[in-house]
Amino acid sequence: MDARGRTIRGRFIHAPRPDGIEILSDALVAVDERGTISAVSTPAESGHADRLSAARDAGTLVELPRRASVLPGFVDLHIHAPQYPQLGKALDVPLEIWLYRYTFPLEARYADLAFAERSYRLLVGDLLAGGTTTALYFATLHGEATLLLAAICLELGQRALVGKVAMDHPDNCPAFYRDADADAAIEGTRALIREVGRLEGNDGLVHAVATPRFIPACTDALLEGLGALVGECGCHVQTHCSESDWAHGYVLARHGRTDAEMLDRFGLLTRRTVLAHSNFLTPQDMNRVAARGAAVAHCPLSNAYFANSVFPLRAALARGVRVGLGTDISGGPISSMLDAQRMAITASRMLETGVDPDVPAERRGRPGSRIDVPLAFHLATAGGADALDLPVGSFAAGRQFDAILVDPDAPGSTLRLFDDVDGEEDYLEKIVHTATRANLATVWVAGRPVAGAASGG
Amino acid sequence: MDARGRTIRGRFIHAPRPDGIEILSDALVAVDERGTISAVSTPAESGHADRLSAARDAGTLVELPRRASVLPGFVDLHIHAPQYPQLGKALDVPLEIWLYRYTFPLEARYADLAFAERSYRLLVGDLLAGGTTTALYFATLHGEATLLLAAICLELGQRALVGKVAMDHPDNCPAFYRDADADAAIEGTRALIREVGRLEGNDGLVHAVATPRFIPACTDALLEGLGALVGECGCHVQTHCSESDWAHGYVLARHGRTDAEMLDRFGLLTRRTVLAHSNFLTPQDMNRVAARGAAVAHCPLSNAYFANSVFPLRAALARGVRVGLGTDISGGPISSMLDAQRMAITASRMLETGVDPDVPAERRGRPGSRIDVPLAFHLATAGGADALDLPVGSFAAGRQFDAILVDPDAPGSTLRLFDDVDGEEDYLEKIVHTATRANLATVWVAGRPVAGAASGG
Ligand SMILES: [Zn+2]
Ligand SMILES: [Zn+2]
Repeated sequence: MDARGRTIRGRFIHAPRPDGIEILSDALVAVDERGTISAVSTPAESGHADRLSAARDAGTLVELPRRASVLPGFVDLHIHAPQYPQLGKALDVPLEIWLYRYTFPLEARYADLAFAERSYRLLVGDLLAGGTTTALYFATLHGEATLLLAAICLELGQRALVGKVAMDHPDNCPAFYRDADADAAIEGTRALIREVGRLEGNDGLVHAVATPRFIPACTDALLEGLGALVGECGCHVQTHCSESDWAHGYVLARHGRTDAEMLDRFGLLTRRTVLAHSNFLTPQDMNRVAARGAAVAHCPLSNAYFANSVFPLRAALARGVRVGLGTDISGGPISSMLDAQRMAITASRMLETGVDPDVPAERRGRPGSRIDVPLAFHLATAGGADALDLPVGSFAAGRQFDAILVDPDAPGSTLRLFDDVDGEEDYLEKIVHTATRANLATVWVAGRPVAGAASGG
Repeated sequence: MDARGRTIRGRFIHAPRPDGIEILSDALVAVDERGTISAVSTPAESGHADRLSAARDAGTLVELPRRASVLPGFVDLHIHAPQYPQLGKALDVPLEIWLYRYTFPLEARYADLAFAERSYRLLVGDLLAGGTTTALYFATLHGEATLLLAAICLELGQRALVGKVAMDHPDNCPAFYRDADADAAIEGTRALIREVGRLEGNDGLVHAVATPRFIPACTDALLEGLGALVGECGCHVQTHCSESDWAHGYVLARHGRTDAEMLDRFGLLTRRTVLAHSNFLTPQDMNRVAARGAAVAHCPLSNAYFANSVFPLRAALARGVRVGLGTDISGGPISSMLDAQRMAITASRMLETGVDPDVPAERRGRPGSRIDVPLAFHLATAGGADALDLPVGSFAAGRQFDAILVDPDAPGSTLRLFDDVDGEEDYLEKIVHTATRANLATVWVAGRPVAGAASGG
């Protein structure tokens, strides 16, 4: 169902702030012809009854099933688009083998535009069907294939930020897969920004983003040049930051400073920067990241495989760092942002209690680390939107209608609501823990239906 | 498709042993009229071509799609059937509140057989659709409702072991939900064993199992009486063992001995015993459990919420303990055994590396703890079958044909195979990490189709 020009009546659940959810019961959400929410009201509010009558009279009212809920679309802050073909594979090898034997050769294949077209089209369609309405993508170092990814997002209707990966350091990138030199990487980034802006029909749905892979893969010349470009054009930035013991230690050894300090020196730590992982940020790093207004893409599943630790989320939030969630396809083996929320909660519990039963309880974990469903859901929606400064992630006038219709009664449902056991206040917990793609009946971006089980996706 | 009396040609993937998988490519698996596998062969084996011709001539050959794979059905070793209505709820409260405010009141409702019928029917159907062909269930303390669960398993075709929960200790069970006394609990268990055996049409698909909830919920008289009953009838036993710091410490305080020692003294640690969780087993406990031939139901997701640790799986296997996997519905919030496998792997990685980035790497984790996809898959299939001494879990003549047809090209698929990226040896990893219910096209128990996305489930 196209939401543009309609008024939708039903249950809307969102988490504009980290401290809890709001359930808008029997609410009206009006969406204008451009997909922007023009009004939100609940029955207790003045004017609500008049708005309901008006929409009914105009024939623009859509009434949702009693047991259905609408959530904001998910914002995935960290995806390696070219790695989708290896999702779920090769996680039992060390990072170096994972990169050199599997990942770099796979990414190198995107010089082939036919391969890129097939893979990217499948990925974007699958992510939309999974409720990911906004995606922040690492692509490959190929300009053409990266522009193609942007065009596919535009065509299929996904809000996206797409980066040509910049990586030129001969020590940490293989000869068969690296930028010719710093200038080539910088010019490639500049060209992508220009060309994404010129894509036909792109009225702001898709953006380009400066994407130094991580400090180890980049020469200082490249990092300096990208910093200058970012200062000039104000574009978004994404990179990996202090992910693992190795990566954190490498930067300390090369520069005598942490990732966050060095990114700041290079002009790459800005209000528009998203730092993937960041598990080993020091307290001073967190303060710096917060002061610059940069955000962290917390990728809890991937961390279990490649980061040697759980991101100290509560500590980062306490220091004012903005945080959203990422799947880190394919470092994380699952593409669903529902799974990312589940794992964020589960990992936080494991950090809180610790993991080794041979260690006494009082020394095993880090008390105060747990998060709950509302916070995970906030990170996956409003938190991610805030990290990107995009007007999505919650239901309020002026925001884009990027949303998911969750239907517990869909064919193949794994979400079971019991009318005599569950209250409305239980629905979100059940959705986050037990819903699967079959329950996502419709997914909208800017009011346009882009996927959903109900549409046969 | 009914597999009984057919010969199925296709790819079969199983893991009869913990040390790796076997891929039977273009194999023939013949199933007799009672659902027992009568022969398995691959093209290199003598007689294979003749068997292929014979099945083709007899019109009993079924050819599976090239990209499909057949796996053994999953064996879930730990499910609280009555807790299904609260799956995904209330995980952010301490165990005591979880039990007294949510779980015990919910379980008490199963005195109402209409409620029990509706809830159990939904659960068993959903588990079958998720590929769980064998289930080991805790029910409630109600004899009638527990017998009803057994009857529903029989009707819907799930292989199951069903236990009336025994719990009579006034200190750790509420007045509104506990057995009247030890004798009532013992007689209730005895009656269930008798009545399940008499269920019409039950030729061994469904069994009763002695089910002391855990030592804290049981008086010594109850544990002694159940031990005597088990000695007499030789039935299976299930209970919780050394799950958390609290539970482990409680038994030490009450008895001056560990759970495993006490269960052994009570006659409840047998070749037919399944111990849920067991995170805090001592090395001596592990040796004892191995010597008795008892098994552990490892529930990795639930452990993150209630066990304060990760079960030291590698240590237990090294000491010869038999292990399978469990979802622990609803202590674990996800009913899928695919998720249980994923979390077993993920949790093992987190135990290996540790979780707190502020702890130096060399002191953070427990090296050597990781498991890989083949081992997790073994635990979920042949390992669970072995724990229960049931002739299922792998493809060999004489075993029951309990199996799952996995189709990457099913509607709503989340499993993407790329013919130019993936080899057959990659399929299992991709299935375990990325398949969802939509990919389980057919689920068979004893050759009978009992669920599957292809059947509209
Ligand atoms: Zn990454
Ligand atoms: Zn349990």
